[in-house]
Amino acid sequence: MSEKALIFGHKNPDTDSICSVLAYEALKKQLGENVEARRLGNLNKETEFVLNYFDVEAPKLLATVDPNAEGAENTERQKVILIDHNERIQSVDGLETAQITEVIDHHKFGEFSTFEPLMIRAEPVGCSSTILLTIYKENDLLPEKKMAGMMLSAIISDTLLFKSPTCTPRDVKAAEELAKIAGVDLEKYGMDMLIAGASFGDKSTKE
Amino acid sequence: MSEKALIFGHKNPDTDSICSVLAYEALKKQLGENVEARRLGNLNKETEFVLNYFDVEAPKLLATVDPNAEGAENTERQKVILIDHNERIQSVDGLETAQITEVIDHHKFGEFSTFEPLMIRAEPVGCSSTILLTIYKENDLLPEKKMAGMMLSAIISDTLLFKSPTCTPRDVKAAEELAKIAGVDLEKYGMDMLIAGASFGDKSTKE
Ligand SMILES: [Mn+2]
Ligand SMILES: [Mn+2]
Ligand SMILES: [Mn+2]
Ligand SMILES: [Mn+2]
Repeated sequence: MSEKALIFGHKNPDTDSICSVLAYEALKKQLGENVEARRLGNLNKETEFVLNYFDVEAPKLLATVDPNAEGAENTERQKVILIDHNERIQSVDGLETAQITEVIDHHKFGEFSTFEPLMIRAEPVGCSSTILLTIYKENDLLPEKKMAGMMLSAIISDTLLFKSPTCTPRDVKAAEELAKIAGVDLEKYGMDMLIAGASFGDKSTKE
Repeated sequence: MSEKALIFGHKNPDTDSICSVLAYEALKKQLGENVEARRLGNLNKETEFVLNYFDVEAPKLLATVDPNAEGAENTERQKVILIDHNERIQSVDGLETAQITEVIDHHKFGEFSTFEPLMIRAEPVGCSSTILLTIYKENDLLPEKKMAGMMLSAIISDTLLFKSPTCTPRDVKAAEELAKIAGVDLEKYGMDMLIAGASFGDKSTKE
């Protein structure tokens, strides 16, 4: 059985569901864990801008974790880590066959069930990456430059540059700290990113 | 509306569901939060021994949180913090009317739903108090003597003095640290406690 855990965000991924996944993969690897970041759908324009800007590769697409499904990559029960979501309907096909070992999320919970005890870090903040920065620090680590850029972008995206009603002081503080590590001007980068996401209509170039 | 949050463990409470609740109430009060520990049923013999030993008062019984139920204490939507459980069927009557603001648990999750984002700390360890000790430390605090006794007792109870398959190295380490603060000999106190819980049949004196 593969001991590798796949980390992914929700279907129809937003910047948080791509960038927090990459940052958590980086942290887990630094901690010596066997994990791989994945995505459950096409990148949107905003996320493409972010990955381009920081020269980071997108996670590989994951179609299903059901070992019996067509196109299955796994032959045994897959270990999975859910970021930025917890509801089955937003998650990977075949989730009911997998072992959920961790959840990191900032949303309400919906009919969430597991077969085993697991690690959950949920907090009522504006973005998954705000929770991730806390976890980095609990491990006496900080994200390196590119991953700080990923986490910063996730926070800017989820909070609409701190304008959303879900934004908390912790999100602002995390973003300010991450912008320093990432070496960008928070306001300028944030506006550029949001504008990149809004432009060229609403179709992804990959659609 | 009452801003006080009620903290409680599961129905048919075990030592974890009483003692971790008391320890989390103490921590929250130290942090200036408005909370009150409660219990969802009668104490068992083991828990009575623990409360007696450390001279700690049992939490008050809570019958329901439904504002429209007979015997309701609250007239508005009640804030609640769930310890040592997450499934509705193990929780307080009227939970579906309440706002769950936090969950601290070490069990698998079962059809867990909320109306709002919330704080969840779940970890696959042997006892809720092992997670609580981590949270104390994250706040640069340690439990005082009586509360260390509560947390130690919860760990001994849930792990059967480290013999249960759910016991992890973190539980053992936490118990050793808590025994020092509580000023008891871990092995001797642990055996006395488990024997007190096993004796006199299985009926609580309050039943
Ligand atoms: Mn999202
Ligand atoms: Mn998000
Ligand atoms: Mn219990
Ligand atoms: Mn327990």
